[in-house]
Amino acid sequence: MEDPDRGVTIPARTIAVPRSISAEARAALARLVDDTGVPANARHAIPAPDDVAGWMALKAAADAHYAAAVKGLAGTLRAAAETIAVEQTTIYLATPPAPFDQRGALIDLHGGALVVGGGEACRIGACRQADQHAVRCYGVDYRMPPEYPYPAALDDCMAAYRFVLGRHAPDRIVICGRSAGGNLAAAMLLRAKDEGLPMPAGLVLLSPQVDLTESGDSFQTNRMIDLVLPRPLRSNNLLYAGGADLADPYLSPLFGDLRSFPPTFLQTGTRDLFLSNTVRMHRALRQAGVEAELHVFEAMPHGGFMGGTPEDRELEADIRRFVRAQLD
Amino acid sequence: MEDPDRGVTIPARTIAVPRSISAEARAALARLVDDTGVPANARHAIPAPDDVAGWMALKAAADAHYAAAVKGLAGTLRAAAETIAVEQTTIYLATPPAPFDQRGALIDLHGGALVVGGGEACRIGACRQADQHAVRCYGVDYRMPPEYPYPAALDDCMAAYRFVLGRHAPDRIVICGRSAGGNLAAAMLLRAKDEGLPMPAGLVLLSPQVDLTESGDSFQTNRMIDLVLPRPLRSNNLLYAGGADLADPYLSPLFGDLRSFPPTFLQTGTRDLFLSNTVRMHRALRQAGVEAELHVFEAMPHGGFMGGTPEDRELEADIRRFVRAQLD
Repeated sequence: MEDPDRGVTIPARTIAVPRSISAEARAALARLVDDTGVPANARHAIPAPDDVAGWMALKAAADAHYAAAVKGLAGTLRAAAETIAVEQTTIYLATPPAPFDQRGALIDLHGGALVVGGGEACRIGACRQADQHAVRCYGVDYRMPPEYPYPAALDDCMAAYRFVLGRHAPDRIVICGRSAGGNLAAAMLLRAKDEGLPMPAGLVLLSPQVDLTESGDSFQTNRMIDLVLPRPLRSNNLLYAGGADLADPYLSPLFGDLRSFPPTFLQTGTRDLFLSNTVRMHRALRQAGVEAELHVFEAMPHGGFMGGTPEDRELEADIRRFVRAQLD
Repeated sequence: MEDPDRGVTIPARTIAVPRSISAEARAALARLVDDTGVPANARHAIPAPDDVAGWMALKAAADAHYAAAVKGLAGTLRAAAETIAVEQTTIYLATPPAPFDQRGALIDLHGGALVVGGGEACRIGACRQADQHAVRCYGVDYRMPPEYPYPAALDDCMAAYRFVLGRHAPDRIVICGRSAGGNLAAAMLLRAKDEGLPMPAGLVLLSPQVDLTESGDSFQTNRMIDLVLPRPLRSNNLLYAGGADLADPYLSPLFGDLRSFPPTFLQTGTRDLFLSNTVRMHRALRQAGVEAELHVFEAMPHGGFMGGTPEDRELEADIRRFVRAQLD
């Protein structure tokens, strides 16, 4: 009788920065490992799901970190951002100096493990997207736990989608979600279908967190090999769910009915902890009859090489091509 | 000063068969690991590049193994195979009972680490392809080392391509290469360009061995995690090269000028030792302006789950769709 759980035992080993990527990407990977060979990002303590004070401290630290990181970008941005209150949330509408299409709109749902990445980081992110794609970008500063667990963030994304649908035809809207934002982007389309709203022209899912149960194989195979996101996010996911079923398609859209989704662009990297999330979502979309294209970058961790590398620029160019093709 | 080679140290660990694949695929993975948690395929000794007797013994054992494996298939095949001598090689032309297109042709280049997989396995493989795609399939029994090192196999593929071009218009030909055959398929097109031959209608690369220098990251990250091909193939590659430069594009087509290649379908799995080969080839083709689609299957090792699983059938259906689209 075969043991269907029989695993393979891998001895301890050191995995070098590969020579198959650009010098800039190699340097980015090298910076993510400390002198003892441990990913620096694996040293942070993760609060338990019910440790409200711990999460609030983590959020404050992350916000300070993001604010410092985006400060350097401020002078380089050309898009102007307007702040709009919509129901319980805030939208940053970034308008580039010369949109390639006056009618087109991008809705950007930021990443941050469903807990961080809002506020100033969200506003600057919307400006960057607007600049990169030369299109109006609506960045949604959705509410997050511990103060606002599920379904607050999804409610806010729905409010934002309805708001943008009031200003743009659905076939002039592309939704873009990265990481946790990819979860919300796909969940939002499932809920939009259920509520009878039209589908947008396209969907961009960048290393999307579409399975909060973390059932994919890369949650084990790429553990500690993804130097940006070296460990699973179970505690974040339980915090976000606030008691809701992690396998519910509104929380894990990989398990939803994806039929009639718009053309979808999916990106991941071979070292991404969410490699399985992404390739499974690609297969599921295709099985549902959706046009979906998959892009996997060599040795890339979760979220890319942190910007500025030839690989990051190649990815940006590919997203720009896809967004324009959907809006044209 | 950053050390650009600074690696990450991963402790010893056991990687379970994941729950994210079909029961059939789970059983296939479980069968590939022995009672001590070691991939059974990692127990075979690999001869040194100059150990001719060792390679001949390995080839005899592999041929016997393949012959036994394909015997069971013989009764299930509908295509009839004709044996054709072309220059220094043999082609098996498999004709299905009802080709969907009388003018179309598939050229199938078998796998086997550039050393095994010819003869009866190649003939049966051509019949399977002919049945699956309902199209004439030319299986090329190219010569291999140790008797015939590079460029014998590539010469034979060129002879086969010229032969098929004498019978079919280039826009009615699709080339399919799996593993080592993917190396030869891409190298053949580079050489065909250099020799002024026309490009075919399409190219199918299944987990292709396009980099004999094995510079990709998955040669380390998926080592022992790919239960079918747990270790790199350096000794095979040196044997094949017979002193030629492993980085030459005719040996490692990943490094060639891929412009004007036909539309290409690429497949790999998240556990594939050739994951990096495949995703890098996809990026390189796109950078060269070639239409290329990438398909990555969850937890799939090199070459698939050994047939019969829903995942293998899904892949077959996707290849069939691609081949028909190129020939229609």
